[in-house]
Amino acid sequence: MIGPGDDLGGLIVAALDVTRLGAEPGDVIAVCQKVVSKAEGRLRLLSEVTPSPFARQLALQWDKDARLLELVLSQARRIVRMDRGLLIAETGPGWVCANAGVDESNGPGEGWAVLLPHDPDASAARIRAAVRHRYGVDVAVLVTDTFGRPWRQGLTEVCLGLSGLSPLLDLRGEKDLGGRELHHTVIAVADELAAAAGLLMRKASAVPAVLIRGYRYQPAEASARALVRGAESDLFR
Amino acid sequence: MIGPGDDLGGLIVAALDVTRLGAEPGDVIAVCQKVVSKAEGRLRLLSEVTPSPFARQLALQWDKDARLLELVLSQARRIVRMDRGLLIAETGPGWVCANAGVDESNGPGEGWAVLLPHDPDASAARIRAAVRHRYGVDVAVLVTDTFGRPWRQGLTEVCLGLSGLSPLLDLRGEKDLGGRELHHTVIAVADELAAAAGLLMRKASAVPAVLIRGYRYQPAEASARALVRGAESDLFR
Repeated sequence: MIGPGDDLGGLIVAALDVTRLGAEPGDVIAVCQKVVSKAEGRLRLLSEVTPSPFARQLALQWDKDARLLELVLSQARRIVRMDRGLLIAETGPGWVCANAGVDESNGPGEGWAVLLPHDPDASAARIRAAVRHRYGVDVAVLVTDTFGRPWRQGLTEVCLGLSGLSPLLDLRGEKDLGGRELHHTVIAVADELAAAAGLLMRKASAVPAVLIRGYRYQPAEASARALVRGAESDLFR
Repeated sequence: MIGPGDDLGGLIVAALDVTRLGAEPGDVIAVCQKVVSKAEGRLRLLSEVTPSPFARQLALQWDKDARLLELVLSQARRIVRMDRGLLIAETGPGWVCANAGVDESNGPGEGWAVLLPHDPDASAARIRAAVRHRYGVDVAVLVTDTFGRPWRQGLTEVCLGLSGLSPLLDLRGEKDLGGRELHHTVIAVADELAAAAGLLMRKASAVPAVLIRGYRYQPAEASARALVRGAESDLFR
């Protein structure tokens, strides 16, 4: 169990040591948001939250905890949908997800809520630096979270923060097998890598990090914010 | 290049033979929709399509091919969004995607369009049977396609059809690391497996199938339609 102030980079390096996996150039290390948030102290005690009248009204309407709803509203830049007891919100960096990413599971205990990391790209960069320092090789690091999505049942792991790789593989302009130019093909490799890691990060299994070895990504100094779809191409605001 | 009438199961078994990968119990084989559709003859020659007045009007408005739009409309049960030259539609089985899955890339050639498979679960079951027949072991098979999504840039590979595994891992009722019950956690493992396979199915690379070995899934006789979110929980209709 990770707590505020824990050295996540150091713990991941220790795990790579102990498992003898080490690190090789081009490895991708996916780390779940929850341990990042806890290590960085992104925790709130519900008893210290004062709900606004709006949060109290919602709580009454939906039979929820007004303090938790207040925290959700505090993390939201825009409410995308508010219906049937669900609150889909856009967070500061542009992530659209349930409850603006505020979550009570796997937190420090009853009465605590966990917020998304303040700057998940920076969190990823710190872990990457710790791996580079220990092994002298360059890896990529993803900070991932489990999001729902419209139209499809179930949650999948997606990328919230990254360091060292390009999140999008742009194939536009390349030719398909028949020589026809691809017009729309930009692959969200960071989300596909996150999803692959998600298969091994089961919620009750205490697996907070996954090593992906052998995938040839495009190294880059980039930000996960490139995965945020801008308003101009968003048909679902 | 796969064409109508090709024995996809036989070709995949041949590839497992030739690469000496064979098949082991519990393997997952992900096969991209495009080769399934082509083998099953889900192809249309645009010159044989007669566009309706509505398709002609849209084509004029958006500077697109009216015959292609007519095909898209023929595959749509419901238009979810129609804006900025984009047509997001729900297909018969409930998949929500761009152009109702009608696609010109990697088809048989200029002037052809490829439709989604008629029954991708059945397509997956046939490939699974071919592997069982050759190796005497039970595997799971996914038919995958590359879909966009709201709010996030880039496409990811998702599951359209399956045989032999449960697409959703339902953790509701299990306890988190602190003993707190999980209330919402249903993981779309079929989509996460598809995304993992998608990392290796680059559009111009002629890799239509991926073997995933070592992932412990829940064997089940199930349908990918379990991944379709019903209207009652869909906030983005």
